Amino acid sequence: MSNELKMTVEELETFIDTEFPQVHHGGRSFAIEGIRPMGATVRLFYHDRHLRPGGTISGPAMMSIADYAMYIAILAQLGPVALAVTTNFSINFLRKPEQKDLMADCTLLKLGKRLAVAEVSMRSEGSDDVVAHVVGTYSIPPRG
Amino acid sequence: MSNELKMTVEELETFIDTEFPQVHHGGRSFAIEGIRPMGATVRLFYHDRHLRPGGTISGPAMMSIADYAMYIAILAQLGPVALAVTTNFSINFLRKPEQKDLMADCTLLKLGKRLAVAEVSMRSEGSDDVVAHVVGTYSIPPRG
Amino acid sequence: MSNELKMTVEELETFIDTEFPQVHHGGRSFAIEGIRPMGATVRLFYHDRHLRPGGTISGPAMMSIADYAMYIAILAQLGPVALAVTTNFSINFLRKPEQKDLMADCTLLKLGKRLAVAEVSMRSEGSDDVVAHVVGTYSIPPRG
Amino acid sequence: MSNELKMTVEELETFIDTEFPQVHHGGRSFAIEGIRPMGATVRLFYHDRHLRPGGTISGPAMMSIADYAMYIAILAQLGPVALAVTTNFSINFLRKPEQKDLMADCTLLKLGKRLAVAEVSMRSEGSDDVVAHVVGTYSIPPRG
Repeated sequence: MSNELKMTVEELETFIDTEFPQVHHGGRSFAIEGIRPMGATVRLFYHDRHLRPGGTISGPAMMSIADYAMYIAILAQLGPVALAVTTNFSINFLRKPEQKDLMADCTLLKLGKRLAVAEVSMRSEGSDDVVAHVVGTYSIPPRG
Repeated sequence: MSNELKMTVEELETFIDTEFPQVHHGGRSFAIEGIRPMGATVRLFYHDRHLRPGGTISGPAMMSIADYAMYIAILAQLGPVALAVTTNFSINFLRKPEQKDLMADCTLLKLGKRLAVAEVSMRSEGSDDVVAHVVGTYSIPPRG
Repeated sequence: MSNELKMTVEELETFIDTEFPQVHHGGRSFAIEGIRPMGATVRLFYHDRHLRPGGTISGPAMMSIADYAMYIAILAQLGPVALAVTTNFSINFLRKPEQKDLMADCTLLKLGKRLAVAEVSMRSEGSDDVVAHVVGTYSIPPRG
Repeated sequence: MSNELKMTVEELETFIDTEFPQVHHGGRSFAIEGIRPMGATVRLFYHDRHLRPGGTISGPAMMSIADYAMYIAILAQLGPVALAVTTNFSINFLRKPEQKDLMADCTLLKLGKRLAVAEVSMRSEGSDDVVAHVVGTYSIPPRG
């Protein structure tokens, strides 16, 4: 596995805006904070749309940000030709998030020819406590 | 475990409308199709809001309907005092759903004093093929 | 997916005895109870080797029987050329098993070209209560 | 959560030898390499008993070492009164392990009053590649 990334943050954002505009449906929810070999960090803006009563970020919003972090990490590594599909997604909810942006750190545990496996730890901005933890598997289509 | 349900479908709908109005934020997405001892069936209306380009129902929408089905099955069994919290949620995406309503069948595998474990099979209306399969764990708070 | 099975129980047992004799290391632990389209039932003999103090069947023994049930169900469907490899295995332990043989019922949720996904419910012989529940994913190698 | 550990490695080994002698049934398989606040590292000796043909460490052996690492990390933190029970165990098999000892690094993501959630990364000794990754949940009994 080469440690050279195939896309910059700017290229990733342009790619997402063009190919998956629905990610930002209703207003921009996510931002790419940084990418690195076999990893990415993504931010979920604290926003009414993602909240449960009491100000807690909803489960589906946490799932969406984790899925986004994994997809960005895979894209950065493989380049824009990749069309990975989530096959398994397992999340443990550990603590109530604070009323702040949520940061999702993704590490690719494996990036094989057919499968990628990634883990994501989510923390409220500025906190060390893991709010939720995800392990996901992506199926990578054959490359020509 | 008694096989007697503590709530009717009507009571469940009233409870959800009152306690969790945000479930229906943006328009009514879910309907309770039926409940039974240790199980429930819930419908996700096929609707623009839940779609990915190409008309596929999005992953987060599938997660929401599965979570809803599990919560309804637990509520029906325990009554409205219960405030179960999802602790683990694991989903396998198996096939592309059709451009139809999505039916989620939940069976409670265990309903203990502290933990409930449930599985959910999701199918496009009128089809036998499982589109996605979920196993979830809920933590049940101590009852007075 | 054809509903025609490619192997009989006898052929499956011969195949396992020849290719994976270590399954029976230390004495015969498993028996194939039956196969059907997209499913199989396997028995774990109640035996000292699989026990925890107090007579409870150990977690690893439950994992082994579930894995075996999934592998038999896939082999029956694909025939002896298949060399499926477990990629994900998720188990929920629900109840203490009884001091009896353990029956594992496997259903294939999906049998695609590259991935198979199966669920397994384990019950003590003669009981309806699910003792443990597994969802597993297998990677299927390209077929020539 | 206090960062002070309640047991030393020596006390942990004595506790396991006394309370769970079956862990070492057939010869000593595991060794505690080290403990730290909210974490532990455990070694699985490369040994015939754990092998599949070709010299690969078997899935059940990997599951056993991961479960052991999680249990040691919880015990070190809570002390010998704890009797944690595995409720969910999810493993991703990523690479073939080498013909060497297997090292399992456990980190507790949460240690609550009722639930502990841990992750474990397994690597062949001297390698950086993750061979298998586990997330597990333990139910912790009420403490008097």
